[in-house]
Amino acid sequence: MDIGIEHTKLITLRGSGLGIIDDGAISFSRGKITYVGKTGGLDTRELDVVMDGGGHVTMPGLVNAHTHTGLTILRGGAQDVPEIEWMNRALGPLAKHLKEGDQVLGSKLGVIEGLRSGITTFGEYAYNVNRLIREVYEPYNVRVAATETINEVVSDKTKMRPDQVYLLDSDRGNRSLDVTNELFDEYRNSDMVDILYGPQALDMVSVETLHSIRDCAIRERAKIHMHVAQGERERLQVRERYGSSTVKALDELDMLDEQLIAVHCHDTTEGERRLMVESGVSMVGCPSSIAMIDGMVPPVGNFLSMGGKVALGTDQAPGPGTHNMFREMRTISLLTKTLYRDPTLLPPWETLRLGCLGGAEVLGMDDRIGTLEEGKAADIITIDLSGPNLTPSVSRPFDSCIPNLVYSATGFEVDNVIINGEFVIRNGDFVNIDEEVVLEKARSRAVDIFSEAEKDWEEAGSLLVDMHRKGFI
Amino acid sequence: MDIGIEHTKLITLRGSGLGIIDDGAISFSRGKITYVGKTGGLDTRELDVVMDGGGHVTMPGLVNAHTHTGLTILRGGAQDVPEIEWMNRALGPLAKHLKEGDQVLGSKLGVIEGLRSGITTFGEYAYNVNRLIREVYEPYNVRVAATETINEVVSDKTKMRPDQVYLLDSDRGNRSLDVTNELFDEYRNSDMVDILYGPQALDMVSVETLHSIRDCAIRERAKIHMHVAQGERERLQVRERYGSSTVKALDELDMLDEQLIAVHCHDTTEGERRLMVESGVSMVGCPSSIAMIDGMVPPVGNFLSMGGKVALGTDQAPGPGTHNMFREMRTISLLTKTLYRDPTLLPPWETLRLGCLGGAEVLGMDDRIGTLEEGKAADIITIDLSGPNLTPSVSRPFDSCIPNLVYSATGFEVDNVIINGEFVIRNGDFVNIDEEVVLEKARSRAVDIFSEAEKDWEEAGSLLVDMHRKGFI
Repeated sequence: MDIGIEHTKLITLRGSGLGIIDDGAISFSRGKITYVGKTGGLDTRELDVVMDGGGHVTMPGLVNAHTHTGLTILRGGAQDVPEIEWMNRALGPLAKHLKEGDQVLGSKLGVIEGLRSGITTFGEYAYNVNRLIREVYEPYNVRVAATETINEVVSDKTKMRPDQVYLLDSDRGNRSLDVTNELFDEYRNSDMVDILYGPQALDMVSVETLHSIRDCAIRERAKIHMHVAQGERERLQVRERYGSSTVKALDELDMLDEQLIAVHCHDTTEGERRLMVESGVSMVGCPSSIAMIDGMVPPVGNFLSMGGKVALGTDQAPGPGTHNMFREMRTISLLTKTLYRDPTLLPPWETLRLGCLGGAEVLGMDDRIGTLEEGKAADIITIDLSGPNLTPSVSRPFDSCIPNLVYSATGFEVDNVIINGEFVIRNGDFVNIDEEVVLEKARSRAVDIFSEAEKDWEEAGSLLVDMHRKGFI
Repeated sequence: MDIGIEHTKLITLRGSGLGIIDDGAISFSRGKITYVGKTGGLDTRELDVVMDGGGHVTMPGLVNAHTHTGLTILRGGAQDVPEIEWMNRALGPLAKHLKEGDQVLGSKLGVIEGLRSGITTFGEYAYNVNRLIREVYEPYNVRVAATETINEVVSDKTKMRPDQVYLLDSDRGNRSLDVTNELFDEYRNSDMVDILYGPQALDMVSVETLHSIRDCAIRERAKIHMHVAQGERERLQVRERYGSSTVKALDELDMLDEQLIAVHCHDTTEGERRLMVESGVSMVGCPSSIAMIDGMVPPVGNFLSMGGKVALGTDQAPGPGTHNMFREMRTISLLTKTLYRDPTLLPPWETLRLGCLGGAEVLGMDDRIGTLEEGKAADIITIDLSGPNLTPSVSRPFDSCIPNLVYSATGFEVDNVIINGEFVIRNGDFVNIDEEVVLEKARSRAVDIFSEAEKDWEEAGSLLVDMHRKGFI
């Protein structure tokens, strides 16, 4: 099927501005974009379907550069607790009751939510990520940059002082590295699946494994996707093991270069961020997640001001709540403005770029996605501007839809989602995904998981338990 | 019509917790709530209609305590500029081209958006507010706490140094005060319209007018709704005129008491906030607006921690973008957590109270609205939990819908809005409001306003003009 959309407002993200084209048109064929320009220039005679894009913005699909979608099944389960409680006392007692298959169900739920709000590429980070590729991303026809978690910790962290060094088992790391290398072989010719190397964090892998990963990544010309400087627990572990900070230790380990995608980075100094930027390291900021779990703002503004490459991600649902990149764009803009007390920071034209092209660049996929241009993959979304929250959106003397998309849209105004030239959502409905079945299964299964976790949850005694007893939750 | 909703999850906001009732029911008759409790206790025999509230939360309507809805017609028009440019160089050149009737059209648009996201009471602040009462709030059957702006400034502020004292014309103030007093007479017996006194800000009215207002407010036992300490321009004016800060000057003028609703308050010291709280002053925080326009966080967290009463508001659309209290609840939670680096601050149970009962208390309406209890006005909303972003929401071991409502809802999951016992939105559709007609008129009129403003907008030369030339907007 050769398809065209005409009479739309295109945000192409080409060139130095946003590449806005009024009364624009786009067509695609066999997964690739074949025309981007004015409606008048589109030859519709060869097209099977021509859609009217009036009252809509048409732009590249959003890139959620860092996410653990499997945990979506635990949405609403862990937030508003001290950072030190979040993992072990709030999320942990629930996650402990996840069974075989829950990760897939949670991922389906998270991906459905993300698709509905215009995400076309997910930077998935998980154990057993191949199962998600096969059971979620491939059948859903969703582009994925998949990272298999490499984590060698064998200690029971809940029973240790934070500065007691974790026991690592390098066999565990090597097995996960082998799995990753097999993924490269399996998906080498895939248009839709990219593989990244995923050492979970500096405190969770050995130096030897980290260097093996680096060597593999050089061989595969692949990215290393790693949580970096994500808080106190990591800082204490790294200090005990390396006598320095995460960034300085990574520098000494010769890990700071264009290969490295550093996620979070909120526990860094300005000097360390400069070192990362100058070394070519890119970062992913997950604003809602880090605000909710750590009470901090990811240093996206600072990284950008130094010339660094930045992408945005939703991380996981328990905590930040949603997999919605429109929400993340608005959130990072507001948080950055208030962090530096400057309302001009992270304006919508900058944030929109981060949400599309920024994600593509950081994941190393900008040769194929991130902008609307001929020859690139047809990952395209349309956004209906007709709702009360996007009204009015004018084109003169400037395009007020640009601020409206970032500050007023919910994300659910997205009504067409095209990935690699195939409609995943068409006129508001999923084409090949039975959304209701997934949601009903998730609802039903979550009732069981949360109920089964009740005793562990109460015994863990997070702040939420007390709030529940007081009738607040 | 006597109506009941059964098998719903009630958030009543009664008592010290959230007053959550599982498998709850509520009924109302002649505008008043007649039953709140378990479904088993509802006598449905006397009811004309019984609705199934399964899969829904039913809670009090939200109170948007401070808003200028008329400006919604300029949505997307002014943001991402330095604070000092916002009013005079970004919004001003557009607002100058508003004509008779645009305020009403903008207000209809803003109220429609607010209703769709569950707002049942608007703290409207406008010149000629009676026109909005008559042409928007009364025909739409929406509860309003209406404030007529009292502003005596006759100087052209765009042509003055910020520290040059404005010329005031007390006749102007007296006329607006007379208008306000007439509103009290007109709406004294109204269930749906409350009137407040509205000196715009300390720098914009004379001492004499302020004291006349205070005397009138004492006579009417009414609230004084005033912008307080909203930034540099006010600070410079107040320093020139009073030799002190806004809060200290208000204290010396004997204005700090339970009558005063202080909006914004971001340019205050902790000591000044303590003085306000101890004097019984309540505050309204408009988080999206102040973050967007000033790059600051309203001191809601600090005010609450001192025991002060706090409400939330959307302010206006240009800048923050939307009239959506779900969005404001999420925004103030995230901003407060990051401001104080503490993820436990402003948890959803606290924010939900601010959005309903807090607004009612600050506006002096909590005898009638803000909670679900027998005898109170039937201002009720239902929220559909079935969408992907609110799935799952479980009830055991705790109610995960509480965090989900604040952190994951967009607001547009609201599918029934009942005000004073009448359906305004029923099953997702407006009952008596022709939404499409209003939206189309707003779209069409905005195109003209923005186009007519082009020359003035370019000449004012805000940062947006430069960004437009660079193709960003």
